[in-house]
Amino acid sequence: MASTAAAPSATPLLKDELDIVIPTIRNLDFLEMWRPFFQPYHLIIVQDGDPKKTIRVPEGFDYELYNRDDINRILGPKASCISFKDSACRCFGYMVSKKKYIYTIDDDCFVAKDPSGKDINALEQHIKNLLSPSTPFFFNTLYDPYRDGADFVRGYPFSLREGAPTAVSHGLWLNIPDYDAPTQLVKPLERNGRYVDAVMTIPKGTLFPMCGMNLAFDRELIGPAMYFGLMGDGQPIGRYDDMWAGWCTKVITDHLGLGVKTGLPYIWHSKASNPFVNLKKEYNGIFWQEELIPFFQSASLPKEADTVQKCYLELAKQVRAKLGKVDGYFNKLADAMVTWIEAWDQLNPPKGAVATANGTAKSK
Amino acid sequence: MASTAAAPSATPLLKDELDIVIPTIRNLDFLEMWRPFFQPYHLIIVQDGDPKKTIRVPEGFDYELYNRDDINRILGPKASCISFKDSACRCFGYMVSKKKYIYTIDDDCFVAKDPSGKDINALEQHIKNLLSPSTPFFFNTLYDPYRDGADFVRGYPFSLREGAPTAVSHGLWLNIPDYDAPTQLVKPLERNGRYVDAVMTIPKGTLFPMCGMNLAFDRELIGPAMYFGLMGDGQPIGRYDDMWAGWCTKVITDHLGLGVKTGLPYIWHSKASNPFVNLKKEYNGIFWQEELIPFFQSASLPKEADTVQKCYLELAKQVRAKLGKVDGYFNKLADAMVTWIEAWDQLNPPKGAVATANGTAKSK
Repeated sequence: MASTAAAPSATPLLKDELDIVIPTIRNLDFLEMWRPFFQPYHLIIVQDGDPKKTIRVPEGFDYELYNRDDINRILGPKASCISFKDSACRCFGYMVSKKKYIYTIDDDCFVAKDPSGKDINALEQHIKNLLSPSTPFFFNTLYDPYRDGADFVRGYPFSLREGAPTAVSHGLWLNIPDYDAPTQLVKPLERNGRYVDAVMTIPKGTLFPMCGMNLAFDRELIGPAMYFGLMGDGQPIGRYDDMWAGWCTKVITDHLGLGVKTGLPYIWHSKASNPFVNLKKEYNGIFWQEELIPFFQSASLPKEADTVQKCYLELAKQVRAKLGKVDGYFNKLADAMVTWIEAWDQLNPPKGAVATANGTAKSK
Repeated sequence: MASTAAAPSATPLLKDELDIVIPTIRNLDFLEMWRPFFQPYHLIIVQDGDPKKTIRVPEGFDYELYNRDDINRILGPKASCISFKDSACRCFGYMVSKKKYIYTIDDDCFVAKDPSGKDINALEQHIKNLLSPSTPFFFNTLYDPYRDGADFVRGYPFSLREGAPTAVSHGLWLNIPDYDAPTQLVKPLERNGRYVDAVMTIPKGTLFPMCGMNLAFDRELIGPAMYFGLMGDGQPIGRYDDMWAGWCTKVITDHLGLGVKTGLPYIWHSKASNPFVNLKKEYNGIFWQEELIPFFQSASLPKEADTVQKCYLELAKQVRAKLGKVDGYFNKLADAMVTWIEAWDQLNPPKGAVATANGTAKSK
């Protein structure tokens, strides 16, 4: 069940090292419900539609808010890589943040309760996931070996027990599961009531469907790969923003020896989106993903690609070469991937260099 | 907690298609505790030590029992491939069975309770795991998509939703976790109290440490790969029997497009084995596994290897070629792998052929 009155927060972890990125807040209850957990942190809100609409943020939150006009002003022509009228625009928040960690959450995701009835501090669990290593090179049958009460089981090579740095923590959803439109249509009443008390590493070489609803990552380790693509207004596809980011991210984390975890924490996903609208957004993606998965499964990055940026640009090249023939959209997307990296580097110049542009925004 | 009085069984699934293989029963309570769940099934008991010792089986169980004299009589010189004075001898039971499915369990594993306090029918859950497909080609974040209340999430390619036939169901353990001797020594008090309500497929290309304590498999799909190696009396290694079988099995299931599941069901592992004794058995394995894992990770089987037997013989060849230099033991093991397949084919002639030997045993 979703909580109605969240308990006061414990000491906030990484208070000055994490930004919470939220794409548009339509639901006034959303921040109230998360207040005990989110108020200590800085929020970055990226408004996805009409810049003239006003987003109301309750008193007491420290936030900055970007609308389309801000994005255009800050990025200039490079703003073309940021989706419009789609929650994919959230990735602008990843780029403009100056923190080491990002947590992103949708405004229809509320505080869930664990089986004992206690409110789940999702952010705290994500931080724990990110601060402990991953185990991408060999499967541990007792799940996360770094958790209290767990360890590596018999037969787990000792040389691999140091693990790999964790780049991504993918959280799950109670109540409304993250289904595609066809599954929503076929199973309108299905709810996820199963609390699986596990965090696990997605093994090296294995792709997964990354959902952006409840997601945290280490910006320094993987930020430039978290591009949510071209979705929404003027694009032939929607609802593949997080998937695209997840596939690119997984190929790059595998190449760079980083880890991706999935499982805890759960949030309470309150509302199913309209399956008819979703089908319209998804139908190209449902078709294209049959080509995309083999593409990403066989994608290989050269040894020289030793930074996320270099990996991402190489992937953009491969997208153009191999997916352009699936649909012209992928040539446009490959261009946008390059623009995204240029914009990222502009807002995040290498340490020691001087920024050539600066993100200024409406701030509280 | 372990159950003390198991509830009567529900209608037994696959009653005539599954054998339960148990290596030596030292614990008289063991079968009493499992009676409600095991009594409908046929048991194959493989006695691992002195053939003169008598194993007492409570009234009402349908079983056959093999001791070393029986194994020598049935296999003749080929009996050399079956371990002596080690529970690895259980694999003789897989070979002599005529059923489609095998469940194997150790005699220190009791009935566990689920979080609601209900006795867990481990066998029933294994059968459910084996009868539903696996998903080795792409990761589903909501775990087993074929379970009630679950499905494939958004972004899961539709062409992969048929899944793959499940060859192996690997169950877990509450209470005493399956740790190696060094971890046992360092964490003598650690107990597994976490009930993770999930079944998942181990992705293609990922190795795992397969524990033989609570394990089910489809003999027809993968039986000949379930060889538990040369352990115990006269061998420089112990406690790697199930690991060896698991690594070989995973390489072969990956090659043949079959699936391996892990997770539910839990059993209650009652007793930690002696860590000092275990260390003596394991120390070579702990050292060797650092070479074995890369070997199995890079092992590749040719297209012509289209049966489990052909795959296994090819793997034996690679073991000799690549692991012989790690230790002479692996040349002996490679020979035993070949002998195992010869013995398997002798007791399990291709359909239509006539058996050249027949397993007769002390029967109730």
